[in-house]
Amino acid sequence: MTTQQLISEIKRKKSFLCIGLDVDLNKIPKYLLEKEDPIFAFNKAIIDATHHLCVAYKPNTAFYEAYGIKGWQALEKTINYLNKNHPEIYTIADAKRGDIGNTSSMYAKAFFEDLGFDSVTVAPYMGKDSVEPFLAFQDKHTILLALTSNKGAFDFQTKIVDGTELYKEVLKTSKTWENSRNLMYVVGATKAEYLAEIRNIIPDSFLLVPGVGAQGGNLQDVCKYGMTKNIGLLINSSRGIIYASQDENFAEAAAKKAEELQGQMKQILQF
Amino acid sequence: MTTQQLISEIKRKKSFLCIGLDVDLNKIPKYLLEKEDPIFAFNKAIIDATHHLCVAYKPNTAFYEAYGIKGWQALEKTINYLNKNHPEIYTIADAKRGDIGNTSSMYAKAFFEDLGFDSVTVAPYMGKDSVEPFLAFQDKHTILLALTSNKGAFDFQTKIVDGTELYKEVLKTSKTWENSRNLMYVVGATKAEYLAEIRNIIPDSFLLVPGVGAQGGNLQDVCKYGMTKNIGLLINSSRGIIYASQDENFAEAAAKKAEELQGQMKQILQF
Repeated sequence: MTTQQLISEIKRKKSFLCIGLDVDLNKIPKYLLEKEDPIFAFNKAIIDATHHLCVAYKPNTAFYEAYGIKGWQALEKTINYLNKNHPEIYTIADAKRGDIGNTSSMYAKAFFEDLGFDSVTVAPYMGKDSVEPFLAFQDKHTILLALTSNKGAFDFQTKIVDGTELYKEVLKTSKTWENSRNLMYVVGATKAEYLAEIRNIIPDSFLLVPGVGAQGGNLQDVCKYGMTKNIGLLINSSRGIIYASQDENFAEAAAKKAEELQGQMKQILQF
Repeated sequence: MTTQQLISEIKRKKSFLCIGLDVDLNKIPKYLLEKEDPIFAFNKAIIDATHHLCVAYKPNTAFYEAYGIKGWQALEKTINYLNKNHPEIYTIADAKRGDIGNTSSMYAKAFFEDLGFDSVTVAPYMGKDSVEPFLAFQDKHTILLALTSNKGAFDFQTKIVDGTELYKEVLKTSKTWENSRNLMYVVGATKAEYLAEIRNIIPDSFLLVPGVGAQGGNLQDVCKYGMTKNIGLLINSSRGIIYASQDENFAEAAAKKAEELQGQMKQILQF
């Protein structure tokens, strides 16, 4: 999917919501565990109930790998279901990969070609030649970790290098990489006040913003400091939406939570 | 496996060689492609021919993910084969994972418990709470990326933060984390001259050293600057060993290459 198509969908749906499909078998309704593929059954129900309210879904690969082959099958089924039934929806493999050049190419092939995701999250620590193999794919996005939503972000990301914070150095340096137009960035909502300065460095790039809801980030603040004329934001919520209820009505409860967020987004987009 | 058991195996085998099982179907002998599981068939042949010469195997997960479900099945079969037939061999999932706390726990469970690896490589960018969930597992090692063997290592890892290079800051900071005794570190052989300074910060930790062979690193230099009284080194070679030949004799050819390296290690260990 191109950036322009994503922007069109955001405007059409009046939503820049991304729903994180982080399925933990200990947290889903018990009756689903009797299904042949509980993870996919859960995802399908969530997708069916929420697809009109969001523009993107983001499975975090850790939650699938934790269930081995069955987990990977559920991930495949989920992305296939999305690509077949909702091709207008943007898909993010939250994999946080990154390796030396030829190995990053293998990851890029896995997520972009074989699984057919629109984008994948990538860690910057190994530098240019670990990220460029992802950037080489046309109409696919590489979402680089910049400033994450967890406490550990302050261990290294905010340390000063060459007179600026490491995450800003990552932003600046990544702009010089080949096909950098295919970059988006992860910036945690828990650090909304940083967004103004981030926008000085990357005025137009899309940001994937986790941490609204369960992690305490505030939607209004994120939009105030981070929104661009083309919106430029994908706000992710995972647990706050998908685990709204553990009863049989879990999908409706999730839709209600998604609708609350989408309602706020609709208001923000009107201004 | 405990660190002490690993050291004992190194002394017994007179080898600190780790063989990287990075299987690319374009590079393995053509006749294997007709087998039901070409990746596992290749790995099994390599393991059968080289297990007496090395102390560790390191599959890089990218090469398995690139083949989807079949790839994961091959990875499972490979680790099961190793754990069943060669429990004395140390196993490394070269996955370069790392995520927010609860998500890192899922990855740790996947690699340590479900797959049964002895260790996993982890990226440091997200800091303490992204690594500690891995460190919580007893008799398992977390191998943190410090200074990698690729060119991109100079993009961020060698930048100066708080008066020292970022990778040294990673080493220093990681020592303060809970269960830091379970840490090992990735330090590329292509930067052997850095090892003396690294040893000032982490005098005893084991280092996983990629980049000998195909990437141009030198074994003697690595040992000169990086070896400790308990050896403290695992030298990885992947392509240089497993793709020594593309003929039917590929496993023997791999063993010959492994034997060359092991021979050099044996000599070094005598001094």
